[in-house]
Amino acid sequence: MGKKLHLNAFLMSTGHHEASWRLPESDPHAGTSLAHFTRLAQTAERGKFDSVFFADSPVLWGSVGRRPIGAVEPTVLLAALAAGTERIGLIATASTSYNSPYNLARRFASIDHLSGGRAGWNVVTTAGADAARNFGLDDQPLHRDRYERAAEFLDVASELWDSWDDEAILADKEAGIWADAARVRPVDHSGPHFSVKGPLDIPRSPQGRPVIVQAGSSEDGKSLAARYAEAVFTAQQTLGEAQAFYSDLKARTAAAGRDPEGIKILPGIVPVLGGTEAEAQRRERELDELIRPEYARDELAKTLRLAPEDLPLDRELPAGLPEEDEIEGAKSRYTLIVGLARRERLTVRQLIGRLGGGRGHRTIAGTPEQVADALQAWFSGGAADGFNIMPAALPSGLDEFVDHVVPLLQARGLFREDYIGRTLREHYGLPTPSRQSSAEQGLAHAS
Amino acid sequence: MGKKLHLNAFLMSTGHHEASWRLPESDPHAGTSLAHFTRLAQTAERGKFDSVFFADSPVLWGSVGRRPIGAVEPTVLLAALAAGTERIGLIATASTSYNSPYNLARRFASIDHLSGGRAGWNVVTTAGADAARNFGLDDQPLHRDRYERAAEFLDVASELWDSWDDEAILADKEAGIWADAARVRPVDHSGPHFSVKGPLDIPRSPQGRPVIVQAGSSEDGKSLAARYAEAVFTAQQTLGEAQAFYSDLKARTAAAGRDPEGIKILPGIVPVLGGTEAEAQRRERELDELIRPEYARDELAKTLRLAPEDLPLDRELPAGLPEEDEIEGAKSRYTLIVGLARRERLTVRQLIGRLGGGRGHRTIAGTPEQVADALQAWFSGGAADGFNIMPAALPSGLDEFVDHVVPLLQARGLFREDYIGRTLREHYGLPTPSRQSSAEQGLAHAS
Repeated sequence: MGKKLHLNAFLMSTGHHEASWRLPESDPHAGTSLAHFTRLAQTAERGKFDSVFFADSPVLWGSVGRRPIGAVEPTVLLAALAAGTERIGLIATASTSYNSPYNLARRFASIDHLSGGRAGWNVVTTAGADAARNFGLDDQPLHRDRYERAAEFLDVASELWDSWDDEAILADKEAGIWADAARVRPVDHSGPHFSVKGPLDIPRSPQGRPVIVQAGSSEDGKSLAARYAEAVFTAQQTLGEAQAFYSDLKARTAAAGRDPEGIKILPGIVPVLGGTEAEAQRRERELDELIRPEYARDELAKTLRLAPEDLPLDRELPAGLPEEDEIEGAKSRYTLIVGLARRERLTVRQLIGRLGGGRGHRTIAGTPEQVADALQAWFSGGAADGFNIMPAALPSGLDEFVDHVVPLLQARGLFREDYIGRTLREHYGLPTPSRQSSAEQGLAHAS
Repeated sequence: MGKKLHLNAFLMSTGHHEASWRLPESDPHAGTSLAHFTRLAQTAERGKFDSVFFADSPVLWGSVGRRPIGAVEPTVLLAALAAGTERIGLIATASTSYNSPYNLARRFASIDHLSGGRAGWNVVTTAGADAARNFGLDDQPLHRDRYERAAEFLDVASELWDSWDDEAILADKEAGIWADAARVRPVDHSGPHFSVKGPLDIPRSPQGRPVIVQAGSSEDGKSLAARYAEAVFTAQQTLGEAQAFYSDLKARTAAAGRDPEGIKILPGIVPVLGGTEAEAQRRERELDELIRPEYARDELAKTLRLAPEDLPLDRELPAGLPEEDEIEGAKSRYTLIVGLARRERLTVRQLIGRLGGGRGHRTIAGTPEQVADALQAWFSGGAADGFNIMPAALPSGLDEFVDHVVPLLQARGLFREDYIGRTLREHYGLPTPSRQSSAEQGLAHAS
């Protein structure tokens, strides 16, 4: 039995292609529909996926004309999906810049309890002045400051999750002692960004801590991932780039004193399936033709810090764009977009088409066999431990992947036939952190 | 068809009696069990209750030895219960002192969407230094400052909920226009406590805004309720006190320019049921005998700002306790406890027994007829629009109330036989706030 790859379903209202909402199948109110997300999560669970995953930023970013951009907050969505599923992991994005560690650690511990140990937290620092202005700031904190706060946030959250021992609840009805006060401790954290007394107001959850996920690929992002992340989502366009990212991050993780097997690297893939390659390509083209380029150009201009009129649709990007280290927000995304445009000498119109499909993630348009081949090549080639599957259109794109690609991966021995464990840590093959009071640890050492 | 009373089920792990967890029926892990809370919510829905309700404070308060005090965070719990129920309202407590308006407004709008319009928010300011120390403060802000922040928080949250018009989503697939940008506006709020740009990143929810609930009975609390609350939970021990509170708050609401029918006043009631009055009283006594008074005395001493040794168990409260207006936290609870002890000349041990049952709420031990009579007397006597039912032990206390008291109230024409509406606003008979852009409102006036 060889090593298996991991699959997450990255879900987003009507799909990852920005024009997917215009398809006949699409529910324009999908982003706020429990029935929609429950159906998707159950489909992913039928396909034995490791998890479903939701992005998030606490801001209405972009044009409401262009596509459905308002959606339910993902931590509460996870809780609702915990009730509608049984085995699949549940990962939500939440910002360390615009939350309090006590509140967020509590919510993820709560979701871990409600789901029986299936919670994961995708840690983001949230780029952009627009988000900052929803939280009393005039502009975003500096990139480096956001990452320093994120590291301290993760430290505090971990201390809070560890503030109850595994066996703190005695439940001694006879003696009238519910929990052992010696096994529930304050954290008394005091640092540059946070002072938190603790303990957390919820007993230790089934996974001990939620699975920590990270998705930034800047230098600061990779450093944070090497120290804390147990899964990493990343956008990679070519096998070579993906291999380089993979081996770099595994090496950084080892250098941080951690087992490189303890961090799962999962590039995003936008599959567009068809019975033949030509059919798949036609479906991709039809979706691209539904993009309204004027909306997309406005957002591209915002990302590149230009005016829309600086970006004629049928010319390449202008020269003289700033370097990544002059950018304070979403650095790795910036580099990816500019790199893609330069490498393939894309016009603005072509670049918009490529970004409209998967926002910089690799699109694979082809037959189920071709998609399975592509995933296998990256997995076997040391470029990925698995993939974050980003269907262009939902629900159909997930249905097709589960019905046609998953069976091929299973037949090739690359993917589980059924769940073995019950928790997300078990699906990923990650250890469950245990927590015992130092007194007990001392006794264990002594015995 | 006369006016109907409203019933909320106030749920708390194994029940409101502090020793309930020691009963044979009780699951000591109930506070983190989705199955437990789903069963309770479904029972309350079978009983046609208006809502289930959860208290909250972001702090582990009290002794973990004494009773189960760690539980899931209630906003994520509501989302999970939205998936497991269809009609019943879902109310969670959340603090205005230790949340950001943007984050919390989003979560309640999300729950309102996921539940099809069943969300309510019990607005609290969170007393106590222990909670403050989980959020970077050395002590709680002053009572008045907490209430000023709460009022501004509610203003900002309302602006955010109103930042999308009812009909903002055009869903024009043909033209490629998802929503009308003119009907989604920033809020540009700037005040002493909050600066928030907006708009909210989720379309307007089915109820427009969640139902606003309030539970403090101090002067500041009553002022806040008169301005904002649509339902008020309150602890009242006697008919006379409850009538005085009821008419005072209705008058304050009218004085604030609002319809007094738009605020539902719901005292908490702890029913302890038995086939005979003697059986009910025996069950209450058996529960009280399970209290360990040393734990309870420690917490009482903390509330009264005394040392435990200042409170001999078999003597009355000492003289010279501070007046309510010298207290900075949980003012109305303080007054209730001291008032109860003085009025009935209770010893500390007796006071602990009374508080252990319902933390100052009225306990009614009796037959289903006696409980129904008591509720009817308060409802008909102008003391209540309904009740917040706080079963001493769960799940049995809710089962018994639904099976034996609800049918009596229905037979007397005092309570609904079935749900008529689908939203919490419809259950309470409250209007759904609508929101249209001023341009449209202007057109409506002109036409």
